[in-house]
Amino acid sequence: MAKTNSGRFFEDYRIGEVIAHAVPRTVAGGERALYHALYPARHALYSSDEFARDCGLDASPIDDLVAFHIVFGKTVPDISLNAVANLGYAEGRWLKPVWPGDTLRAESQVIGLKQNSNGKSGVVWVRTRGYNQDDEAVLDYIRWVMVRKRDPDAAAPDTLVPDLKPVLAAQDLVIPEGLDFARYDFTLAGERHRWGDYEIGERIDHVDGVTIEEAEHMMATRLWQNTAKVHFDATNRPDGKRLIYGGHIISLARSLSFNGLANAQMIVGLNAGAHANPCFTGDTVRAWSEVLDKAETTHPGVGAIRLRLVAVKHGAPAFALRGDDGKYLPEVLLDLDYWALMPM
Amino acid sequence: MAKTNSGRFFEDYRIGEVIAHAVPRTVAGGERALYHALYPARHALYSSDEFARDCGLDASPIDDLVAFHIVFGKTVPDISLNAVANLGYAEGRWLKPVWPGDTLRAESQVIGLKQNSNGKSGVVWVRTRGYNQDDEAVLDYIRWVMVRKRDPDAAAPDTLVPDLKPVLAAQDLVIPEGLDFARYDFTLAGERHRWGDYEIGERIDHVDGVTIEEAEHMMATRLWQNTAKVHFDATNRPDGKRLIYGGHIISLARSLSFNGLANAQMIVGLNAGAHANPCFTGDTVRAWSEVLDKAETTHPGVGAIRLRLVAVKHGAPAFALRGDDGKYLPEVLLDLDYWALMPM
Amino acid sequence: MAKTNSGRFFEDYRIGEVIAHAVPRTVAGGERALYHALYPARHALYSSDEFARDCGLDASPIDDLVAFHIVFGKTVPDISLNAVANLGYAEGRWLKPVWPGDTLRAESQVIGLKQNSNGKSGVVWVRTRGYNQDDEAVLDYIRWVMVRKRDPDAAAPDTLVPDLKPVLAAQDLVIPEGLDFARYDFTLAGERHRWGDYEIGERIDHVDGVTIEEAEHMMATRLWQNTAKVHFDATNRPDGKRLIYGGHIISLARSLSFNGLANAQMIVGLNAGAHANPCFTGDTVRAWSEVLDKAETTHPGVGAIRLRLVAVKHGAPAFALRGDDGKYLPEVLLDLDYWALMPM
Repeated sequence: MAKTNSGRFFEDYRIGEVIAHAVPRTVAGGERALYHALYPARHALYSSDEFARDCGLDASPIDDLVAFHIVFGKTVPDISLNAVANLGYAEGRWLKPVWPGDTLRAESQVIGLKQNSNGKSGVVWVRTRGYNQDDEAVLDYIRWVMVRKRDPDAAAPDTLVPDLKPVLAAQDLVIPEGLDFARYDFTLAGERHRWGDYEIGERIDHVDGVTIEEAEHMMATRLWQNTAKVHFDATNRPDGKRLIYGGHIISLARSLSFNGLANAQMIVGLNAGAHANPCFTGDTVRAWSEVLDKAETTHPGVGAIRLRLVAVKHGAPAFALRGDDGKYLPEVLLDLDYWALMPM
Repeated sequence: MAKTNSGRFFEDYRIGEVIAHAVPRTVAGGERALYHALYPARHALYSSDEFARDCGLDASPIDDLVAFHIVFGKTVPDISLNAVANLGYAEGRWLKPVWPGDTLRAESQVIGLKQNSNGKSGVVWVRTRGYNQDDEAVLDYIRWVMVRKRDPDAAAPDTLVPDLKPVLAAQDLVIPEGLDFARYDFTLAGERHRWGDYEIGERIDHVDGVTIEEAEHMMATRLWQNTAKVHFDATNRPDGKRLIYGGHIISLARSLSFNGLANAQMIVGLNAGAHANPCFTGDTVRAWSEVLDKAETTHPGVGAIRLRLVAVKHGAPAFALRGDDGKYLPEVLLDLDYWALMPM
Repeated sequence: MAKTNSGRFFEDYRIGEVIAHAVPRTVAGGERALYHALYPARHALYSSDEFARDCGLDASPIDDLVAFHIVFGKTVPDISLNAVANLGYAEGRWLKPVWPGDTLRAESQVIGLKQNSNGKSGVVWVRTRGYNQDDEAVLDYIRWVMVRKRDPDAAAPDTLVPDLKPVLAAQDLVIPEGLDFARYDFTLAGERHRWGDYEIGERIDHVDGVTIEEAEHMMATRLWQNTAKVHFDATNRPDGKRLIYGGHIISLARSLSFNGLANAQMIVGLNAGAHANPCFTGDTVRAWSEVLDKAETTHPGVGAIRLRLVAVKHGAPAFALRGDDGKYLPEVLLDLDYWALMPM
């Protein structure tokens, strides 16, 4: 019995400690093919080695969200096995592309703790870093989760709430080495709209929808070696439903956003993210985006665009987000704030 | 809103124009593995590099139908997003094998237009070509679809109905360079029947059946980056059903035909094809074939065999095809006429 | 009709004959990615090339059970197409790792025959060997099945029941060349428990569960090119259910056993196995293990551990196995006896 992992509880975390997560993973063409089977992913830079080379890269990198999901998945057994809720993300940066054949591992440092007033749980902030086989950081983000206490009588730690940037500045973003959109082929990319064509405040309804299947979300979640029981075990909830991994909705919404944002090629920053409501099999997911900001970069032809990506269930009002009470509408699944790179 | 692709309508096509389709795709071992997970594909030349080498090739090529589906998928946003029906195929030829690592793109030329008498839609004929990264054509076929008009009052174009070959002649077929069946291993291939054992008119019931699942047809269709809403969005039809991509049935029937046609290794010609009735999840698909023609080739030991491949739903009468009225029986899903290569 | 394979019947087998199975298969990264999508597989040696190199191997091998399923799948058309039951396994040994790019084929020799007293069927014992492209044996196991007779009046063969080892001795096991656990990283592997921490008789409940989906078990079974109708065709049984391939349960249970046996890295021996009860979609599968034996090896830091792996349906009593009558409880799906390698 003592041999299995029952996960950490709130009182097990210490400010400053670094947790090395288990099970490194080599990622290659098989993972890429599966990503394209599980999501309607069409961004050309991640679909074609030739297109990527014409953008100054050696080959098509592994999708940025694959890197995110794999790094995130590694943290689950140590961070969120006993989590009540995944509360937020901040300061996420993609630092280096992940190439086929790379092996990823992850580490998290505890940077904040705050016990809840009920004494039964608390919030844990971690900065998670993903590394490749050369110990180069490829991804870095902050995440905070509410975690149960094992023993309600355990002493509360000193409260430390980290000071987080509400939004990454454009100059904080790391543009992949060599990236060059000077010869970008808009026809092959699928849309003619360039960075200059988008206006701050502009909203785009991405039109298409995908109905969720159990086999698909489970295969995706397993591929990232995410072990949270709620996604796989129908006996885990009284209603017999399997909760969809929030990252599945992120990837689904991002893929759907191709239709209107086909040229928002690379994801380089994650400013914030909320999984507003749970999603289950049979739900049909749609998406819309809003242009939040724009910035130039020093790379040839490369602009940065800050986007809100919202996933909603079919039947949601147009551009559904929050009600008059400021709370997310019940049809809203995801509210993500990210930076992408786009040809100018 | 103007940023998303609403597709072309009938009045948007011009005779002679060439449409370069978006999102090139690098195809490799991951796609091959998925093809073998999604279909009961067992043809040895596509399963084993060693077997392929013994047949004079450098390695096992990507399945011919993967090449077809990927090229076809690229055309959907430009050709069939507003299509009412996929009417037919003709003069399809596989011109070069697709190897792992190849990057495919596609172009279509409009070769025929004919407005329907109701004035609301018309038929568009296109010749589609798939190319690899060296701009070599790998696949070439004609397809015609019925497309809606955006504006019923738009003027009708001059009618041009292309003159299509009802069947490709054996000498029109392109045999892959180096292909040599002189040392063909019938034991490893799984059946002893060679080209000489099949008679024109012979019919084969392929015995096995596969029950369709939503997750499987969606993964397959996404893998080909086919974006047609009807396959993915259960809210798209009043009955809440997702229509199965016709190409899923082609691949399923072809794979089932292994049992009786294990040595019909390479597909080199597509003479005609009709998606006779729609297919939905839960249907069990079976297949039968008829030998339509045979021809010799100039390659060592390589014969060509022209086959009718018919997919039917479980419960169809034996060798079901058409009723007394000449129309397809309701259980018939697919009627495909193709050329394959077989050891003599 | 005569062109399709109707399988062998009991009277078709002869003692000593060697059956070369069809359809060799090249296995690579795509199959690995799919394995990790279809099962919650997390053993580090099969997930990370870097981890495998630190264990003295050239790269991460293809999962041992992938090798088993592929070799097993090849035998189905010749051995078990008309099988009434898969009765058992013995003397299974993994002889060489399978590397990405290897091409596998299989042969079986008939080593035992015994007609049943009812005269309608009989038991066939075969020794199956899987080979790579260099004709090196990678896997070797004995399996016995009950097979129907085509003609109940066919003469009974002389009875020969092979003398099988109930358990492989530790010295019979083949340790992969170069394997070295001296620098084994327990943190990256995910658990701190080493060979010395396990006691004979110790039992481990693996905690997690997975609810079975049709699309997943069919994709897995197809990936191994296993053609048995019962897994794919919902019209095959009166109750419209598709029977789950027993190997799907083996892989599922083995993957679940990570939680408590994360360091039982390589499977090197299969002593026995029983598919105790059928499994269907919607069942939630759990697993438990028992340590049956332990042995040292001559490789640095490498210990052998003999494990019973039991898969059960949700709701089974703790450590469910057999009832007072000695029969498997109805919730028990699998009872597997295998040897694995673990860091000392």
